[in-house]
Amino acid sequence: MSEFEKVEYKPKPVREILLEMKNLSGLMIDLAYSAALFNDKDLAEEVLELEKKVDTLAYLLDMTIMIAARDAEDAEALAGVAKVAGATDKISDAAADIAVIVKQNIGIHPIVTEIFEKVEEHIARAIVGEKSVMTGKKIGKLNLTGRIGVDIIAIRRGGDWIVNPSNDEKILSGDILIARGTRLGISKFREIAEGKIRRIVGVKEDAAG
Amino acid sequence: MSEFEKVEYKPKPVREILLEMKNLSGLMIDLAYSAALFNDKDLAEEVLELEKKVDTLAYLLDMTIMIAARDAEDAEALAGVAKVAGATDKISDAAADIAVIVKQNIGIHPIVTEIFEKVEEHIARAIVGEKSVMTGKKIGKLNLTGRIGVDIIAIRRGGDWIVNPSNDEKILSGDILIARGTRLGISKFREIAEGKIRRIVGVKEDAAG
Repeated sequence: MSEFEKVEYKPKPVREILLEMKNLSGLMIDLAYSAALFNDKDLAEEVLELEKKVDTLAYLLDMTIMIAARDAEDAEALAGVAKVAGATDKISDAAADIAVIVKQNIGIHPIVTEIFEKVEEHIARAIVGEKSVMTGKKIGKLNLTGRIGVDIIAIRRGGDWIVNPSNDEKILSGDILIARGTRLGISKFREIAEGKIRRIVGVKEDAAG
Repeated sequence: MSEFEKVEYKPKPVREILLEMKNLSGLMIDLAYSAALFNDKDLAEEVLELEKKVDTLAYLLDMTIMIAARDAEDAEALAGVAKVAGATDKISDAAADIAVIVKQNIGIHPIVTEIFEKVEEHIARAIVGEKSVMTGKKIGKLNLTGRIGVDIIAIRRGGDWIVNPSNDEKILSGDILIARGTRLGISKFREIAEGKIRRIVGVKEDAAG
């Protein structure tokens, strides 16, 4: 999305926008720290993508609140939501600050990150290739948790984010997956997503999703 | 802790302080949103406690960095840590903003929170009573996940916080437990912690922890 793209008003319930902001900003925090602890510029990039999305949602929420509030009672009911949304925007900005530090190469020094490698779970990004065995399959069918100890915590599909996707979510070619797991598991996961490993034990290449 | 308490310098590795700040601020975000979505002033209180702790850690980190940096190379290695810690402090402040909104009764209106009751997991606080069956038992032994679908995500013991406690952690009388689960599970959890329910199916009152 370009920084100057116009945000169009689409009617959506206030609670849904707020929940989406909450989920996305929570994801941003996780990704931002992981980006910082492991000097991962790909993840930093995703954090900045998420910040744009949260900004758009904050703007949409403002508009929705304006339209929804018809009297003092409405305004009272909605003022709290606006305040919480404001704090969410601050959280998202702080996460973006961390991402910018990582992108500018002034992040945490390898001397410090080395130690994190051992204690912290890894989060990483992978882009699903056309020839990946994942393409067209449901997350539950792949059973990555059981097989390689990796969980998909979010999917970016174009401008849309799916946070904590359900087992019924089908993975499409071109999806950007955010996953959490051990270092070894994550490196396997990347190769599977990119189509370099063409077989996950027990998952047939031509099985329907 | 009083707001004016002096922070004493205790030597602790930079990475440990940073990891603790990261874990506590992540917990703050979860608790702050839960406090806002369900108008829970107890949780808001815990968020403000956590903010004090993060502030203290930020101050301790500053001192540690000052002492650790002896030349330009050290300074370069530590500048990134200081920046990430600064962003963490901002995240913690924003979470505290949400908590203050809840405490001032200008939080999200019941009309909006009602809907969250159905879709969102609950987080709640419970204080362990002397006569609780939990007292003196290890978390793993209690198996609250299996029995009532509740996970203990943090323990506050005096001024100390244990985030994501291990199964080997023993629960003590007076502990403040933060738990996540369904509404029904959480309400059972509270009664068990407070000693109102004296028996969890399968856990004997006098079993050793």
